Amino acid sequence: MEEKKVSTEKVLELLQSRKFFDLRNTLKDLNPIDIANLFSDIPEDKLLMLFRILPKDDAAEIFTEMDTDDQELLIKGFTDKELKDVIEEMYIDDAVDMIEEMPANVVSRILRHADPETRKQINEILKYPDDSAGSIMTTEYMSLKEDMSIQDAFDRIRKTGDEKEDIYTCYVINANRKLQGIVTVRDMLLSSNERTIGELMETNIISANTTDDQEAVAKTLAKYDLTAIPIVDNDKRLVGIVTVDDAIDVIQEEATEDFEKMAAVVPHEKSYFDTSVLQHYKNRIPWLFVLMFSSMMTGIIIEHYEEAFKTLPLLVALMPMLMDTGGNSGSQASTLIIRGMAVDEIHLNEYFKAVWKEFRVSLLVGASLAIVNGIRIYITYKNLKLSIVIAITLVFCVMVAKLLGCSLPMLAKRLHLDPAIMASPLLTTLVDVSSVWIYFQIATMIMM
Amino acid sequence: MEEKKVSTEKVLELLQSRKFFDLRNTLKDLNPIDIANLFSDIPEDKLLMLFRILPKDDAAEIFTEMDTDDQELLIKGFTDKELKDVIEEMYIDDAVDMIEEMPANVVSRILRHADPETRKQINEILKYPDDSAGSIMTTEYMSLKEDMSIQDAFDRIRKTGDEKEDIYTCYVINANRKLQGIVTVRDMLLSSNERTIGELMETNIISANTTDDQEAVAKTLAKYDLTAIPIVDNDKRLVGIVTVDDAIDVIQEEATEDFEKMAAVVPHEKSYFDTSVLQHYKNRIPWLFVLMFSSMMTGIIIEHYEEAFKTLPLLVALMPMLMDTGGNSGSQASTLIIRGMAVDEIHLNEYFKAVWKEFRVSLLVGASLAIVNGIRIYITYKNLKLSIVIAITLVFCVMVAKLLGCSLPMLAKRLHLDPAIMASPLLTTLVDVSSVWIYFQIATMIMM
Repeated sequence: MEEKKVSTEKVLELLQSRKFFDLRNTLKDLNPIDIANLFSDIPEDKLLMLFRILPKDDAAEIFTEMDTDDQELLIKGFTDKELKDVIEEMYIDDAVDMIEEMPANVVSRILRHADPETRKQINEILKYPDDSAGSIMTTEYMSLKEDMSIQDAFDRIRKTGDEKEDIYTCYVINANRKLQGIVTVRDMLLSSNERTIGELMETNIISANTTDDQEAVAKTLAKYDLTAIPIVDNDKRLVGIVTVDDAIDVIQEEATEDFEKMAAVVPHEKSYFDTSVLQHYKNRIPWLFVLMFSSMMTGIIIEHYEEAFKTLPLLVALMPMLMDTGGNSGSQASTLIIRGMAVDEIHLNEYFKAVWKEFRVSLLVGASLAIVNGIRIYITYKNLKLSIVIAITLVFCVMVAKLLGCSLPMLAKRLHLDPAIMASPLLTTLVDVSSVWIYFQIATMIMM
Repeated sequence: MEEKKVSTEKVLELLQSRKFFDLRNTLKDLNPIDIANLFSDIPEDKLLMLFRILPKDDAAEIFTEMDTDDQELLIKGFTDKELKDVIEEMYIDDAVDMIEEMPANVVSRILRHADPETRKQINEILKYPDDSAGSIMTTEYMSLKEDMSIQDAFDRIRKTGDEKEDIYTCYVINANRKLQGIVTVRDMLLSSNERTIGELMETNIISANTTDDQEAVAKTLAKYDLTAIPIVDNDKRLVGIVTVDDAIDVIQEEATEDFEKMAAVVPHEKSYFDTSVLQHYKNRIPWLFVLMFSSMMTGIIIEHYEEAFKTLPLLVALMPMLMDTGGNSGSQASTLIIRGMAVDEIHLNEYFKAVWKEFRVSLLVGASLAIVNGIRIYITYKNLKLSIVIAITLVFCVMVAKLLGCSLPMLAKRLHLDPAIMASPLLTTLVDVSSVWIYFQIATMIMM
């Protein structure tokens, strides 16, 4: 992979020895995103000095890509002029992302120094709820009119394109800002300059509403291989666009959230190391308490069968294997179902189809485990009855585990809960209860 | 969300009553991807009839988006002419994706009917290993020369752009096809037509090698917000590009694979319902066997403490709670570490930083669980010694679980294994062993 890197030490050394010219030359060859990453390793008191050395053209882009903490420190050190320059150069959606992370006094300073037009656009996006399409859109899109010729359109792009985040997809709107169609620069380039936008535009438009869930919007972009999707309000007026780079971020964030939920961690936006020990604690303790109390149920069932394992202590030694196998069988099923629903491959109306599949899989899996384990127990303990108990228990445990693993996530979705909470940890606790009950029932029936 | 849909029933009805004109009109308004999805619900014997009704312009794109099974059926029914038309209209990377899923006789028929130039390009991509950048790239990119004027470049795009997958990023190559720079249509549109490509092009290029891992390439695209990335061979000659839509697919597939691995399922490319019962069995049984045998370790430890739980059977009833809590604490840590490494937020050289964080979190978590549970046990059983045993055990179990959960994925990565295999199932089995051992050690020390 070709990515130019410069070490933090090198940058600090040049900064220390005040070789600003060399430093600027070194930075010039780097990608703005790599420069932004450099900033996170620079001591706080040097941040502003380094920022002022950056090539003016790239400064706003580099600023956009920085950690929130670095941005906040810089803003506090900025002159009013510097602040104004950076804000006006940033894309509106990036400015909003930043503002959402800033303390109130910094936000008000930013808004005070923004142009009235910029301020209006920022406030427009800020009003949409978190996780909505409106909150991740940008209002800087390229709009065209139906009666323009392609030549007119190119002239307009040349004149106003500089400040638009995406110019390749243009949106055709009427006098009421209602979305009429979309036209790509590709189509414009590949047809003759005399045709009008109205003739060229595609009127079958895939769009989203400002209040749609951002995850759904990101998935639509991915599904239809779009580079941007128009966002309209309830009156079908165009208010912004969501671009593919932001959609990728949403897709990655949502996957991370699912991983966290499925591991019984309360999702959290910050990265692992940026999250404090106390916050990690707060994210992890709630589910541990819930699960600890539900796993006590298993204990209560075991207490009932005290006589059984007093008579045959070996029953206790085989318990973890049965519980773990049940738990693992169940979490295989639940993970496949949860992920399948997340990527739209499994739908709620396919419940019985899924149950039927899991039932057949569980028969095969249960039978294999039962045979191998039955034989092993017989060889180890020379106890035929015990090996039959274990074999039968395994078949039933696996079956119950797979059916619960398949049903609970779909039930959760049906109830408009997040299926991801039905993953391994909660499922294991529930499967434990049934495994232990099945086990001792069968054991007392056959052996006592 | 605005997506036009037509029901399968409607399509079948129009097809049945041979209202082909109405059917074509109905389909005309749909997105090609939605039409492709329709095909998967159409009976096999009607597929070819429906395909022949499609508007000619969209047929190849719709074909591209279909399930492999439908594609195979159609190809078998195609005339030579139809096959040739479709193959020539498809983008090379899509054609390769399809060919990779086809049986040998279908592949050879496809290659026989492709143009010599198309065949050469297909074979070029086919030679790269699965999961490499080469295997997902397309060879249909827009190339320019350094000495062209922008006007020349636009002329070239107009002439040849129709068959290129992406025209917005153009690649400047020299006579030896070495990559000199990249220039975007945006920059070309926003500057004057007399300037040359050489003046305008960006020479700090982020590129990837044909043999780079596709996941790494997709992440680079995401990191730098690119819509395409050039792929070069070992001599730095440009051989293709990877576009953002394919990168999104890779990101989603890799996340799905991680979910599967973390649930002890052998990853599998097909969707849940497209995977046969037998294949589901094959994907799930290997890890279940491994985990079943490792969980027997826990049983062996329990056998050692037979006397302890014969004297105090309550010890057995509390075992599942301790094991589950240990397992869940551990999988919280391992999931956060595995996902953190997957999205490049945690690096191997930060091992001690991670351990230190987990250690402090485990103290807080362990202490909270110990206090609450100690009190509960005392109230329930009026047994102070037992409640002390449980409290101390919880602190140690959580600590061991979190440290293992943090260390094992990083160790796996260090050994160039996939960290995802160290997730919940395997970890739980390992944590079980230590939890049970810690528990009975402390119990015998304090109570016996």
